[in-house]
Formats: sequence, C-alpha cells, structure tokens
Amino acid sequence: MKLNCSQSELNSALQLVSRAVSNRPTHPVLANVLLAADEGTGKLRLTGFDLSLGIQTSISASVQKSGAITLPAKLFVEIVSKLSSDSPLTLSSDEISQQVQLISKSGTYEVKGMIADDFPDLPLVETGTSLKLNPLLLSNSIKSTLFASSSDDAKQLLTGVNLTFDGYGIESAATDGHRLAVLNINNILSQLENENDLISSSKFSITLPSKSLREVEKFLSSCDHNQPINFFIDKGQVVFISDDEIITIRALEGSYPNYSQLLPDSFSNILEFDRKEFIASLERIAVLADQHNNVIKISTDSSDKLIKITTDAQDIGTGSESLPVSFKGESFQIAFNVRYLLDGLKVIESDLIKLSCNAPTTPAIFSPVNSNVNFKYLVMPIQIRN
Amino acid sequence: MKLNCSQSELNSALQLVSRAVSNRPTHPVLANVLLAADEGTGKLRLTGFDLSLGIQTSISASVQKSGAITLPAKLFVEIVSKLSSDSPLTLSSDEISQQVQLISKSGTYEVKGMIADDFPDLPLVETGTSLKLNPLLLSNSIKSTLFASSSDDAKQLLTGVNLTFDGYGIESAATDGHRLAVLNINNILSQLENENDLISSSKFSITLPSKSLREVEKFLSSCDHNQPINFFIDKGQVVFISDDEIITIRALEGSYPNYSQLLPDSFSNILEFDRKEFIASLERIAVLADQHNNVIKISTDSSDKLIKITTDAQDIGTGSESLPVSFKGESFQIAFNVRYLLDGLKVIESDLIKLSCNAPTTPAIFSPVNSNVNFKYLVMPIQIRN
Repeated sequence: MKLNCSQSELNSALQLVSRAVSNRPTHPVLANVLLAADEGTGKLRLTGFDLSLGIQTSISASVQKSGAITLPAKLFVEIVSKLSSDSPLTLSSDEISQQVQLISKSGTYEVKGMIADDFPDLPLVETGTSLKLNPLLLSNSIKSTLFASSSDDAKQLLTGVNLTFDGYGIESAATDGHRLAVLNINNILSQLENENDLISSSKFSITLPSKSLREVEKFLSSCDHNQPINFFIDKGQVVFISDDEIITIRALEGSYPNYSQLLPDSFSNILEFDRKEFIASLERIAVLADQHNNVIKISTDSSDKLIKITTDAQDIGTGSESLPVSFKGESFQIAFNVRYLLDGLKVIESDLIKLSCNAPTTPAIFSPVNSNVNFKYLVMPIQIRN
Repeated sequence: MKLNCSQSELNSALQLVSRAVSNRPTHPVLANVLLAADEGTGKLRLTGFDLSLGIQTSISASVQKSGAITLPAKLFVEIVSKLSSDSPLTLSSDEISQQVQLISKSGTYEVKGMIADDFPDLPLVETGTSLKLNPLLLSNSIKSTLFASSSDDAKQLLTGVNLTFDGYGIESAATDGHRLAVLNINNILSQLENENDLISSSKFSITLPSKSLREVEKFLSSCDHNQPINFFIDKGQVVFISDDEIITIRALEGSYPNYSQLLPDSFSNILEFDRKEFIASLERIAVLADQHNNVIKISTDSSDKLIKITTDAQDIGTGSESLPVSFKGESFQIAFNVRYLLDGLKVIESDLIKLSCNAPTTPAIFSPVNSNVNFKYLVMPIQIRN
C-alpha cells in the first residue's frame, strides 16, 4: 500500500470510524482500524468494527499501490490529529513487516500494524427490506427514547431501543423496567416509490443496542438533513448508508416486551405546567434528594393553583418548591425518582408539559402540550409512607 | 442569625471560600463553611478553612439578627448556585436546632448545620513582616514554578514552592528532584514607604504548599491588578489581604534545598529554536513516547541546522521530527522525559527558547530568549544506551 492524502480528510475519517472501535476489544485486531487503498478507484477505505457496530468510510487518495493493513486505532488517530493540516501525508505499508510509515512535513512515524486478513468482514446486507429514511426524524426517534434504556448488561433486550415500522411511520421505545419512553413518528419515509409494495413488504420490529445507537445518532445529526438515509434490514443486521459512509449494527435477539399495554387509557388527574420552570425546581430539589434515594414528592391541592415539590433528606435537610399549575382532578400526592423525571423532561421540547396519573402507585405519564410530537414518558411512582 | 442578601453575591462568596474546604476533611466541621452575620456592620462573613489554607470574604447583607453557624459546603454551594438571581434570599438560623432556613422566590430549603464554636479560628497574623505586593507579578511567580513541585506527599518540602524575598524582589522555585523551575522578579513591591527600613527587616525565605498556592494563584489572577495585595508573614503563617478577601496559608516546615548550586555556570552546547514549533513536535512525538517511559531523544548535527527529536516505543512504533535550530557547540545527543519538557515549555512565554547543556548526563537548562523574564527550567536528562 502506498498513497498520498490530506491530513484533514484522513483525520475526520479516522475520528468517525474509531467510534466503532471497542475500548476493551475481545481480540487484538479489533483495537485496530482497517485501511484499504485501491489504485483503481483512487480511494482509501477505513473501517472500525466492534462485532456489533461497524463504521466504514472512504476518502480520496492518490494511490500509487493498492493494499490493506490494520493499525492501532487510538495511537494512529492521536498522531494524525496532531499533524499539521498544511501539507499532504504519505502513507506506505510494508505487508511483510506489517509496519506503516506516515510521512508529514514535520516528521516521519512508523507504526506497527496487523495484517488485514485478520480483520473481520463487515456484514454488509444490502438485500432484505430497504427504505429511504429522513435522517433528522430518525435521529429524533433515537434521541427521544434511548436515555430510558437499561445500562445493565444483564437486562439484555432492555439495553436497546425497539424500532417498529408499520409501513409508513416508525415507533421507537425504550424501557429499563422503571420508566418507558415512546415516540411515534408517522412520516419517517423520505421517498415513496411504490406505496403498496412498501406497506406489504416492509413492516418490521427490531431492537438495536443503545451503545451502538448513540454513535448512529451522532452520525445522523451530522448528516445532510435533506439527503435520505438508505436503510437495509435483514437477518438481524441493520445497515445505514449515506454517501461514503456505511454503518452496520447487529440487532439484539428476542422479542421486545409488549409495552403498549403498560400505557393507561384514562386518567383521573391531569396537571399542566411550564417545563423549564419545573426542570429548574427539580434541579434545585435534586441537590437534597440526591442525598437520600433521589425521592421527591409532588402534591397538589385543588383549592390553590400550585404544584408543590418537596424532598426530605433525613438529618441533612429538606426542600420545598412551588410552581403554578393548571389542574383537573382531586388533591393528591405522588413520589418519583427525581433523576428519572429530569432525564425525560430534557428530551421533551414543548414549553408546557402534562402529567397524567391515577393512583399514587400506578404509572404516570409525562407528555408535551400543544405539540405535534407524539411522545409519552411513563414513570413508575415510588411508594411512600406518610 | 437572620438576614437578607443577594443570590449572586452569596453565590460568588461561597464559590470563593469553598475552595478552602477539604474534600476529605479530618473533622466533620471542616466540611462546612462558617457564616457569621453582624447587625452592626451589615455584613455576612463567610469562611472556609482546611487547617492549611483559609479563605474569608464578606458580602453586604441586611442583617436583622447577628449570629453565626456552619453549613455543609458542597450542599449549600450547590443549592445557592441553582437559585434564581432575580430575587433576594432570606437566611435564618435556629441556633438550638442548628437548622438554617433559606427562602427564595421559588422555594424554601432547610439545611442542618453545626455550631459555629466548633469551627477553628483563622490564623489572622497581621503583625510580623508586612509588604504591599503586585498581584499580577505574584501570580506569575507562582504559576511559573508550581508545576515543577512534587505531588508525592512523602516529599514534604518539595510539595511546595519556595519564595525568597531579598528586600526588593522575589525568587520563586519549585523542584521534585527531577526538574527545577526558578523565576526571579526584581520589582514585586507595589509601594515603598521607607526603603531602608524595608530592606533590613523584610528578608525572608518560606515554602508554601502547592495545593494551597493553586487557589491563591486563581484568586490573584481574578484580583484588580492595579490594587496592591497586602502580604503578612509571621511564625510560619502567611496572610494575603485584598479588599474584603483574606487568605491564610500555613508554611511547610524545614529549610528548602540550596537549589542555586544545581544551576551550571557555563555550557558547551547552546541551541535556540521556536518554542511553539518545538511544543507541537513534542506533542506528536509524545503520543508514541507515552507508550514507552515517555523517553524522547534530541540530537543535533553541527553540519546541518536542524534539531532532530525521536522516540522509539518498542514493538509499537517510532517517531522522528525535525526543527530548524541555531546551534553553538559539538554534535550531541540527549534524552528527556517528554512530559517534563512540555510542562516547562508551556509556562515560558517567549517565541524563541534556548536549551543550554553540557554532557548528556548533566543538567540541561531551558530559558526564554529575547525576554525580560528571568526564568530558568532545569531538567535532568535520562541516561540512554545506544
């Protein structure tokens, strides 16, 4: 392999693909990025792959000799990022010694690599269901729900986000067993070529790991929002393709819990209040609540138009905040984990929010008011003794 | 105690004094800040003290009832920082229950405190030697040397910065046994009232702990640079006073090593090169050097006008950079810990720097070129086998 390329293009490409390189690789070669140069196309292709998430991209290069090698991702990314962008770089590899030489204006680096053959192939499904999706909406569907998934690896399917496509729109959902976030987007398709074909063939429900989706979300929000993303799904693999970039994700196995049955149909208490003021109050109350199980109480009195948020961190202190509220129902009291509330309130974008609930022990729902976003955030209350 | 005060003034004062509150207090009350309100002066005085560093400041308050109490610093700082700055705060304490009530527009907080009598007195020496110092120069004398002090508590005096005042100027020095930074400032005094008195009475040499000086340096750089700082020194205590703020530091005991004898008088090799380019090269080389003992080699060849910086991280890779140099002496090679070099080069502010050395095993000195700053950074080379 021998080629010249620009420092800034190589640097951006390495930053992108290294997101798919594991910090704790299960095999030495997985700590590396794969570089493959092709004289015919004049491209240098870069790949990072942790066996679940794979990211591949290409940059233009003046390739004098085709070839491929893998290099330690962390080290190579760091060296390239510190090189001057003023002058082009020369990369050449000796396939026998597995050494790569990197020459820039200011100096020469030699880095020990590993042979390309050891690097696993990216599962590039381009058959099965194929859709053209709106990247901004897809990014929203991930961002609005991902936070509610479990970070406990033992919880398997709950460490992912479930995506259900009904032929037109997509519903994303995530839960860790204590809270559930659901977003329904009814116009995720960028393009409809043959509507009938599509509806019949393209329905799916798949659960993708949150860790990988976090990288997909970053990638989608940096994409051109007017260009659709090509989405392929087949045999438990999902592939996103946009221009030169390819992302592959292996889905989690199993069927996702039927979460819709958890969402209550009717509510005896409905409260509406200002979202930002509520967040500010909760953040202050959280300082004390964090000292004692994160528990806060919300109470209303049908006589006054205020919601009261209180916390009692035994032996440390107490806090109490009030907020104007528009209220339908009886006076009641309900307790929550303040961290769960803050997580969900931060992804809702409306000015006003609605808290709908029944008993202090049954699920409560937070949702936006006067918004065309169909988002529901269910939180299980904490049982309290008075 | 009962008073009203502004959220923003209380918040700034708390941020300042809490810097002197230990993260690992040796006694519960040392995790607290002391609040003392005085009806007569209309002031709320705040104090943080970790037995080595003490910071005290006052803010205006409308005091209805004098009194004093201590409150958990971390919790109180966090609550106050999150309150709205729109409305004044009411603080009142119940000395019997040791509870403090904090009322703001949006809510009410009660925090459990501890009695003020348990809080140790700040050692407010205002006798002994007294000087008026330039805060900017004092800040520089700390900043330029502190990094070279040892972070190993077992090294006692070497965990501090030594300050020597000769009646006119101040010399600051710090060493960890591997490198030594020395800055000489000959005009540190802001005001000379009676020059003869001063010279005879004010000479001192004192070593102050780096941990505390780090906070003093932050404080000094935020001071009005045109207002002199009052400096008192007596019986191993140093006190800085500026307007409403008082900082006390307990000096380290013992006599600081006679470092001046370590600085060579003459050099057989003198190299001059661009500081920023040298830093950029070292930072790139450091990526590889960090993989293998941080060792880098600098070599010159009297025939070409280049300095070569190389590193060899066995089995990982090698790096080599070149830099134009103006050079007097024989061709030679010398090795350093790259982290030591970067630490020192970052505090030198000149464009050009000078490396003066003799043998590859004797101390090397980095110093600014074309600068009126009298700074020397001595680094012990690393012995290398060829």
